[in-house]
Amino acid sequence: MPEQLPADSVGLVEAERFHYGQPFKLCSGAVLPEFELACETYGQLRADRSNAILICHALSGNHHAAGYHSMADTKPGWWDNMIGPGKPIDTDHFHVVCPNNLGGCEGSSGPTSINPRTGQRYGPDFPLVTVPDWVASQALLADALGITRWAAVIGGSLGGMQALQWAIDLPDRIECAFVIAAAAYLSPQNIAFNEVARQAIRSDPDFHGGRYYEHGTTPKRGLMLARMLGHITYLSDDTLDQRFGRDLSHGHIRFGYDVEFEVESYLRHQGQSFVEHFDANSYLLMTRALDYFDPAAGGSLAQVLEQARARFHVLSFQSDWRFSPHRSHELVDALMEGGRKVSYVEVESTRGHDSFLTPIPQYHRVIRTVLQGIARNRR
Amino acid sequence: MPEQLPADSVGLVEAERFHYGQPFKLCSGAVLPEFELACETYGQLRADRSNAILICHALSGNHHAAGYHSMADTKPGWWDNMIGPGKPIDTDHFHVVCPNNLGGCEGSSGPTSINPRTGQRYGPDFPLVTVPDWVASQALLADALGITRWAAVIGGSLGGMQALQWAIDLPDRIECAFVIAAAAYLSPQNIAFNEVARQAIRSDPDFHGGRYYEHGTTPKRGLMLARMLGHITYLSDDTLDQRFGRDLSHGHIRFGYDVEFEVESYLRHQGQSFVEHFDANSYLLMTRALDYFDPAAGGSLAQVLEQARARFHVLSFQSDWRFSPHRSHELVDALMEGGRKVSYVEVESTRGHDSFLTPIPQYHRVIRTVLQGIARNRR
Repeated sequence: MPEQLPADSVGLVEAERFHYGQPFKLCSGAVLPEFELACETYGQLRADRSNAILICHALSGNHHAAGYHSMADTKPGWWDNMIGPGKPIDTDHFHVVCPNNLGGCEGSSGPTSINPRTGQRYGPDFPLVTVPDWVASQALLADALGITRWAAVIGGSLGGMQALQWAIDLPDRIECAFVIAAAAYLSPQNIAFNEVARQAIRSDPDFHGGRYYEHGTTPKRGLMLARMLGHITYLSDDTLDQRFGRDLSHGHIRFGYDVEFEVESYLRHQGQSFVEHFDANSYLLMTRALDYFDPAAGGSLAQVLEQARARFHVLSFQSDWRFSPHRSHELVDALMEGGRKVSYVEVESTRGHDSFLTPIPQYHRVIRTVLQGIARNRR
Repeated sequence: MPEQLPADSVGLVEAERFHYGQPFKLCSGAVLPEFELACETYGQLRADRSNAILICHALSGNHHAAGYHSMADTKPGWWDNMIGPGKPIDTDHFHVVCPNNLGGCEGSSGPTSINPRTGQRYGPDFPLVTVPDWVASQALLADALGITRWAAVIGGSLGGMQALQWAIDLPDRIECAFVIAAAAYLSPQNIAFNEVARQAIRSDPDFHGGRYYEHGTTPKRGLMLARMLGHITYLSDDTLDQRFGRDLSHGHIRFGYDVEFEVESYLRHQGQSFVEHFDANSYLLMTRALDYFDPAAGGSLAQVLEQARARFHVLSFQSDWRFSPHRSHELVDALMEGGRKVSYVEVESTRGHDSFLTPIPQYHRVIRTVLQGIARNRR
């Protein structure tokens, strides 16, 4: 608990709520009668509203990207090392907007919200949301904030996919897109991991077809398994090796199925703490949005990208095996073929997919340099 | 169903049972009052008993490595492409012995067997078995067969670990060891995947602490998840890409959690068919044996290998990410440092860990060549 907030922190922040009171049609054809997005903002919006940056979060992220909610907070927002005064995404120059995605469980409309039609929680009746739906809902948020064009849309992993989709769907409303540790579509292996996670949740007897709220249960076992599995794919083998190796929790083998190895203890802890704050229906929805993401829909990505106008900054991490550098190369190739402006950096890192959350100097330098260039043009 | 068995098949085979009627002490300190091993053999044992090869199976394998159990059999044994007359492990020259591992569920003593002390199935009371225990039990089987020294011990994955352990524990009883698609110990990532699989089984409400037989249930959901997850790690991303890509099962996205992608359908099928024939307690036991495998116990592998006398043939597969070529390099380095005779081949293959079950010409050529050399020396 910081007695005083760090000088390079955005400080104490509070979530705002954006209410959209009209019907919102989704890619699936389903219509939400209305929706809300929880959102945090940091830094001053210029009078000409030209310095706004949209941060898109990943699978289990939320709108609390930076700063603290109270002086008693032990941890800042999830991208606090990136966002703040003097940080790579510099709130002295930029107005940063980070919404919780539609379908989430931390403030925005989602399965845990009350369905105005029934007065009950949506649960499994909350419609599936896609990456283009998120972009459309974020555009409505931008309208409400009076932001006609983002200086940048930035995201890692599923967040990077949103940045890419923004550039495709709303080319005039985005100056540059940072697509970090992402891919233009999920590989069958990615889908397979998601499928195991979903089966874990859906086969949990406490899931009750997604209506667990009404049964007073939560599919903790399934969600815990899903998170444990996901977590393995976020880390590199090297990271696990350096952090845990084959270290035993009790100094010697005990010949049983309770925790033997430190890595088991770590994974169980990750799973257990996740189920305390994340909703299983939201997890299902987010993984499906990942699976469905495919802006070229099996066709030519280069052709689809011809309609984009943004400058692209693609970043990958050497040890990321969930969305490996190879997947970024595919995107960069398509961007070049589509005649787009693109920079690409493969960042040296042993930390796996989670590298995108890590303050790696080379990585931060790239983000900082590009954004400083944009800030300079604003003066 | 073959009307006539293929000419290069070992033909119709039948499992034999080896009964060991004395107490057998395990690494854990637990003592089995007696045990049985189910076993198949192919090819003639020479009068001097010098042409015997031991095949060690992997996690979910069994003693039915080659041939057919009946003319109605639709599938031969799991390594039928490798073992038979004229095949790389040539039964015209060698007598091949393949036992089901202790703790298994397909004929050898294991959790589904009756505990002679109680008259009930062992269930979770069947003690944990380690790779050295398997080697010791296989040595007792060899004694019973009058085989004092194996011409070769051959195995892939967990089977390769047994071949390695044989060379360390009983150096005078093994002429050469084939360690295929294996490693000298599991990495924390390997352990982590096993841990998720075990948690899936153990948290299934139908598991009942492993006493599901008495409850008339089986932890199908958990075992299915474990198998689905395992299966992903057996295949390369490339294999999944070539076989399924992002192919949809119904031609279009249906916005739901039922099967959308062909890869999901395939995985579910793999999981579902596995639970029909494999026991969950055995699965737990086998994964723990994998975790525990560490012949150097954190010390110097090279030093431990100094006591071995066998010639080593280490093989890895380029696209195997469960036990990658890198893991074989570690072993080869230690073997050379320990002054052992070793050949190493990294086989070109896009099929991932499961390559070791695949009739890849380069791979089969290596096995064939080495064994032909041994057969020649026998003449």
